[in-house]
Amino acid sequence: MKINRCIDDLAESYLFAEIAQRTEKFAAENPDKKIIKMGIGDVTLPLAPVVVDAMKAAADEMLDRETFKGYPSYEGYEFLRSAISGYYRSFGVDVGADEIFVNDGAKSDCGNIGDIFSLDSTVLVTDPVYPVYVDANMMAGRRIVYARGTKENAFCAMPDESVHADIINLCSPNNPTGAAYTYEQLEKWVEYALKNDAVILYDSAYEAFISDGKPRSIFAVKGARECAIEFCSLSKTAGFTGMRCGYTVIPKELCRDGHNIGKLWYRRQSTKFNGVSYPVQRAAEAVFTPEGQRQTRENIKYYKRNAKLITDTFDRLNYSYTGGTNSPYIWVECPNAMSSWEYFDYLLKKANVVATPGEGFGECGKGYMRFTSFAAYEATAEAMERILALENDI
Amino acid sequence: MKINRCIDDLAESYLFAEIAQRTEKFAAENPDKKIIKMGIGDVTLPLAPVVVDAMKAAADEMLDRETFKGYPSYEGYEFLRSAISGYYRSFGVDVGADEIFVNDGAKSDCGNIGDIFSLDSTVLVTDPVYPVYVDANMMAGRRIVYARGTKENAFCAMPDESVHADIINLCSPNNPTGAAYTYEQLEKWVEYALKNDAVILYDSAYEAFISDGKPRSIFAVKGARECAIEFCSLSKTAGFTGMRCGYTVIPKELCRDGHNIGKLWYRRQSTKFNGVSYPVQRAAEAVFTPEGQRQTRENIKYYKRNAKLITDTFDRLNYSYTGGTNSPYIWVECPNAMSSWEYFDYLLKKANVVATPGEGFGECGKGYMRFTSFAAYEATAEAMERILALENDI
Repeated sequence: MKINRCIDDLAESYLFAEIAQRTEKFAAENPDKKIIKMGIGDVTLPLAPVVVDAMKAAADEMLDRETFKGYPSYEGYEFLRSAISGYYRSFGVDVGADEIFVNDGAKSDCGNIGDIFSLDSTVLVTDPVYPVYVDANMMAGRRIVYARGTKENAFCAMPDESVHADIINLCSPNNPTGAAYTYEQLEKWVEYALKNDAVILYDSAYEAFISDGKPRSIFAVKGARECAIEFCSLSKTAGFTGMRCGYTVIPKELCRDGHNIGKLWYRRQSTKFNGVSYPVQRAAEAVFTPEGQRQTRENIKYYKRNAKLITDTFDRLNYSYTGGTNSPYIWVECPNAMSSWEYFDYLLKKANVVATPGEGFGECGKGYMRFTSFAAYEATAEAMERILALENDI
Repeated sequence: MKINRCIDDLAESYLFAEIAQRTEKFAAENPDKKIIKMGIGDVTLPLAPVVVDAMKAAADEMLDRETFKGYPSYEGYEFLRSAISGYYRSFGVDVGADEIFVNDGAKSDCGNIGDIFSLDSTVLVTDPVYPVYVDANMMAGRRIVYARGTKENAFCAMPDESVHADIINLCSPNNPTGAAYTYEQLEKWVEYALKNDAVILYDSAYEAFISDGKPRSIFAVKGARECAIEFCSLSKTAGFTGMRCGYTVIPKELCRDGHNIGKLWYRRQSTKFNGVSYPVQRAAEAVFTPEGQRQTRENIKYYKRNAKLITDTFDRLNYSYTGGTNSPYIWVECPNAMSSWEYFDYLLKKANVVATPGEGFGECGKGYMRFTSFAAYEATAEAMERILALENDI
């Protein structure tokens, strides 16, 4: 038998293994140094109490024959889809509960959505990029073209009218650059997608961090309902990385190649998915209550305070960066034209700080470094003091 | 852009919609009749208390920064993989914790496993069949060949040496027929798979119902570690249909086409999956404790008592059937050479009992009916009395 040979084309990712190895070596040689990790890509604050209460109440329902819940529906319980629809409404976007598909995290759907599109499709991905979009499409053998994010466009890659694409992966606020598209920039992408008969796959996982009025959903943009699918998640909105719940929005009017895309996706999900855990769905519902919003916003404030510590430091140092305002990520140009790994080693040795070399996210990431705001406030503050103290050194 | 046209080849399944429509029509015309549903494919008894306690304790851990859990590992927590490994050991099968991949239900992996195999593969499916194997492979455009389950082989379809297959889907105890393979029959399948350089995808979701000593795992069979992947789930073992937790076993030595299959699957999962909810994994762990086993076995005993009521009835009526002993399903030949739908209408009108027409599961299901043991004991008993009372009528 033959395996899927496209898997051979995937580059094994050594990024995090290499970071761990260099960090461990330094720690072993310098046991007295306190290393601060500014590369964390996972949330660190606990869940909101209202969320835990909801999960426990739902777990108790499973004890009684009358309230026990068996197979959930493929698209998620109505109570959660309505709550998500209401959440969209709270920032001025109209999305029907019947256009929402609940899932176990945005990553699953971002990868699996490919099942409904032709293998001949050309996929456009921005660079630097969250590796899942590239890997999932390479695994399927699809052709990938890149739109470059650079210092010149503030890492908001824009379409090249001379390049055709069928599927367009956008992520805003972006992982890893923290840059968020403006309304006008998204309008250009929508226009490009409609002209190319393409579908935009819009990852809005970090939308809850937006604080300067930029669009929190592609569906805030005119025309997007005819050309976009949105993936979002409670992972960063409410610290659900360990709980696993996200959602995909497919507008009713989205059709391609004579097919309704929402119906195709339902068919895919009913064949290869069996819905999300009932207690997890109840926990997710609690996030969208007024008290849930109040409690979860507190965590986001905490991370954003960290982000401000980082951007204030980079401002003082006159470093060039994106992110921080609308994102837990700060993407900084390595000082003194250092390469990503040179700066990594420099930071580790001189400041005992670990961040993520940008070249792990693609060609355009070379010479950049990703800092995150997920560490503790005290640790973040200390890391920034150490980096400031290096000023005269650089 | 083009969609994946293979989805067009999928027959829309009208089975359950048709059942619902005929049942509703009868109920509307006969409001005084008490209809008993014997077609339920979902568990109905509540979760074991020890499981709910474990979930609630894990939910509480998420409240504290020190015990909070973020992203789970792709393959599942070690505590759960060790517990599953111990469970296998309890019925004499050696499976390492490092050969287990935890998932959100067997259906996901049964469908997604195709990502690692060539689209050129020929897939063998037994008929009658759980529709997911067929639909997931049709969606990928793979060629499907069938091995027929019939009255003559007691619905234990066996390989045809003249037919080549690369991927072999087996389900034992079977959904829908309830038939379970013997050791000797599985040996023949293993031999056939090895001869064809094929991989067996073995669905053992109903293994906890086996009570006559037949193999509860393909890995009980010599040679299977060189040619099989097993999918199991807590859905039927412990009533987890609403909780969503299963596991896939890929032996370390399973290689094809120069690749280690476990490593390929890990790569697939790390690209398109982000692990299972921590509180769900803790709940699952509790199933495999001695108290968890005691409590969950009580539910299985309840369903098996129902199954015995059904098979005792069919024995008295001298009906030909499979299942019941090792399965919540009883697969019966429709009396008087009725077609599946004729018998469906007859049962509905004369006994006010609803079961599932076998032809919904494939060609070989024509003329058969699937009864399940998931209804309440009292309802099952009454349904059987009504069917017995029809004896003189038929």
